Amino acid sequence: MAWRRSRPNHGRRVWYIPDGYLPPLSSGPSELVSHESLCLLNPSPQEAHVTLTVYFEDRDPLRGISLKVPPERTWHVRLDRPEQLGGHVIPRGVPYALKVESDVPIVVQLSRMDVTQPNLALMTTMGYPAE
Amino acid sequence: MAWRRSRPNHGRRVWYIPDGYLPPLSSGPSELVSHESLCLLNPSPQEAHVTLTVYFEDRDPLRGISLKVPPERTWHVRLDRPEQLGGHVIPRGVPYALKVESDVPIVVQLSRMDVTQPNLALMTTMGYPAE
Amino acid sequence: MAWRRSRPNHGRRVWYIPDGYLPPLSSGPSELVSHESLCLLNPSPQEAHVTLTVYFEDRDPLRGISLKVPPERTWHVRLDRPEQLGGHVIPRGVPYALKVESDVPIVVQLSRMDVTQPNLALMTTMGYPAE
Amino acid sequence: MAWRRSRPNHGRRVWYIPDGYLPPLSSGPSELVSHESLCLLNPSPQEAHVTLTVYFEDRDPLRGISLKVPPERTWHVRLDRPEQLGGHVIPRGVPYALKVESDVPIVVQLSRMDVTQPNLALMTTMGYPAE
Repeated sequence: MAWRRSRPNHGRRVWYIPDGYLPPLSSGPSELVSHESLCLLNPSPQEAHVTLTVYFEDRDPLRGISLKVPPERTWHVRLDRPEQLGGHVIPRGVPYALKVESDVPIVVQLSRMDVTQPNLALMTTMGYPAE
Repeated sequence: MAWRRSRPNHGRRVWYIPDGYLPPLSSGPSELVSHESLCLLNPSPQEAHVTLTVYFEDRDPLRGISLKVPPERTWHVRLDRPEQLGGHVIPRGVPYALKVESDVPIVVQLSRMDVTQPNLALMTTMGYPAE
Repeated sequence: MAWRRSRPNHGRRVWYIPDGYLPPLSSGPSELVSHESLCLLNPSPQEAHVTLTVYFEDRDPLRGISLKVPPERTWHVRLDRPEQLGGHVIPRGVPYALKVESDVPIVVQLSRMDVTQPNLALMTTMGYPAE
Repeated sequence: MAWRRSRPNHGRRVWYIPDGYLPPLSSGPSELVSHESLCLLNPSPQEAHVTLTVYFEDRDPLRGISLKVPPERTWHVRLDRPEQLGGHVIPRGVPYALKVESDVPIVVQLSRMDVTQPNLALMTTMGYPAE
């Protein structure tokens, strides 16, 4: 509690990211797979309980994906791997967006690796901090 | 209304993005086309009425492109497809910039896929929140 | 003046960007050249008088590059073209950083196209708004 | 001191970046090496004393990497080069995150060049300003 009082801006509790997309294809000579990583950083001395909401263009949001990030740890969550999302599946080839909520302040960034063509492409953005 | 009062920072009503550009060329072995996606996320329980203003280097802005985003939905608007812009055309090969206005708070991100050369390149940024 | 009072946050007057770099090489089958574009958007009804300061790792800053952006216009300034910088030269192959100052609020983004290798790479970021 | 009082927002003293990763491979016909650059800009008239904390997924943070940035200089620190980190090593192929602390306000951006495949990919983001 002392940390949160003394470090009120070291992270936020709600973040949004509008551009999520898992490219359907992967190619090339290597073991690389098109994917996105949701990079969570918990700089606080407490475990962070994180909940994801996945928004789509044409259907109701997928709610209730729960993640835990230990104190002073980062986790680069692979969004194409259901085993990292408690079994929930974000479909490939479908535009989506994310809300990330945490009980302690964290910092959130989303990065995409696209290997649709033989050479990989990258993009990244910090999330939009809402609370 | 209750949502907006309780979640005053869950999005903004005016966003700016200086770097818009639709590459004129697309190449390579696949069906990929150089384009930009304006990724809108409406996390509120109300439909968002969105208006785009397109700024150019050497002519007056193009105003009045209207879009609707349903509550709790995202829309990754393809800026190279006039049918998604009410028939308005953003010309390829011309530098432009965007203002995005909404009657309810939304979150805005712009991403570009460039396939001028056989392998795609990506870049993205969150918009600049003005109001 | 009325616009600035009614739209106090529609842009900023001082922006910083730490990562500037003009790749020394360009290759590939096309006319593409490695470059950076400093994308300025002036949404106000007044002309913006913009000044750039270029910071280096091992020498004093280059000051006094002056640019003008007409009202309601964008300008994607090519930083590898001295003729767009009043004859000033930002050297290729040297890490640098930028301060962008304006007398009216503007929005600033920096994008890099790297064609060191045959297929282009892109990256972009909004500037850091300081004032 | 006068500068800091008159320019209170020209940089921040604490920044976070969740997505750090040094790709383990480099390939292609050139001398390019996969790497990240931590781009620091010190616009103030005082030397900046900077400390890095490196967070991991499965171990305690690496603390105490010290850097100095002269007044009105930028430094694009190569995170894959221990000689630039006082001998500290950030391992390749391991997800990590960064906290950047400075005694005077600075601006912080992280960029990655990935040459796992013959053609390079780029991504960049401004850090998240916490204090």
